[in-house]
Amino acid sequence: MAIKVHGSPVSPAAKRVLLSLAEKQLDYEFVLPFGQVPGFEDGDLKLFESRAITRYIAHAYADKGTPLISEDPKKMAIIGVWMEVESQRFDAAGQKLSFEILVKPMKGLTTDDAAVEQLQGQLAAVLDVYEARLGKSKYLGGEEFSLADLHHVPIIANLMKTKVKAVFDARPAVSAWAAALLARPAWLKINAA
Amino acid sequence: MAIKVHGSPVSPAAKRVLLSLAEKQLDYEFVLPFGQVPGFEDGDLKLFESRAITRYIAHAYADKGTPLISEDPKKMAIIGVWMEVESQRFDAAGQKLSFEILVKPMKGLTTDDAAVEQLQGQLAAVLDVYEARLGKSKYLGGEEFSLADLHHVPIIANLMKTKVKAVFDARPAVSAWAAALLARPAWLKINAA
Repeated sequence: MAIKVHGSPVSPAAKRVLLSLAEKQLDYEFVLPFGQVPGFEDGDLKLFESRAITRYIAHAYADKGTPLISEDPKKMAIIGVWMEVESQRFDAAGQKLSFEILVKPMKGLTTDDAAVEQLQGQLAAVLDVYEARLGKSKYLGGEEFSLADLHHVPIIANLMKTKVKAVFDARPAVSAWAAALLARPAWLKINAA
Repeated sequence: MAIKVHGSPVSPAAKRVLLSLAEKQLDYEFVLPFGQVPGFEDGDLKLFESRAITRYIAHAYADKGTPLISEDPKKMAIIGVWMEVESQRFDAAGQKLSFEILVKPMKGLTTDDAAVEQLQGQLAAVLDVYEARLGKSKYLGGEEFSLADLHHVPIIANLMKTKVKAVFDARPAVSAWAAALLARPAWLKINAA
């Protein structure tokens, strides 16, 4: 088998990669972590950084499964904007919230309630921008599901198990979008594995 | 003129966009900021987020000036990895250092020396990875200058005016790479404007 993913099954970064493979209906071998996580091999190509890996998968396997990207440079530019918003803004709040509320208790550490409060405010400001955007297009990058949406899924899935769900529920378009992402067959498939 | 950039002439994000246009030898109109900075217009296309804008420029004007990307999916994947490293790791330390040491004094605020110390350590760890990488290839993404290098330039230029220069100077391959980036005609051109 040509494609190997090295990672932890609970890591959002690893799930981001596995989800892109599942959307592309590609077979892969999952290997428990080594070094930089997630690592990725496709034949002699070795990559790290989850968002670089999903971009590679989308481009290299453009003809398989869900498109995830657009061949139109202007449409792709819009998808690219929302990929940057995820990476630079959503993830900054979402990843830390997930860490404070879910990971810390698992490790026997104490959640910093003041930090959670501040991060929830930061996330709410990002989701206000999303609410306006998703009132105008079905997905962040346009009318089709793309990498811009996909990159959010693992952190959204984590946050939906916590009180932060209320921040999503307060925004109807964001809430419907999040529900659609979590109902994708590829996401159900990698979680059933 | 079809391309407009809305931004502040001192913003690293705006400089990132201007540098990609200069590398592509494209004409543009620079407009002082409005709302989200930098904003970008190419005809009817409106974008924000500097790294999404540079990607668009590189793809839409692939046949002009410096290539900046690769058409080979595997080479592009490697460039993509280092673009993610810049965005997720280098920028986290570099942007905050630039803010603490350069921006705060300009605004009459006090630099947080403990934060600077901690951020310098964080930057040093990133540059250790770069030193190893640049011992094997001329640029981060491979043998050719690419977006992976370009995205670093505005923050490196800022840091080189500060005591953080020593963190670069201590690493010979990183130091030579940084000097090559700052000597690019396109960078000199946008700073002379």
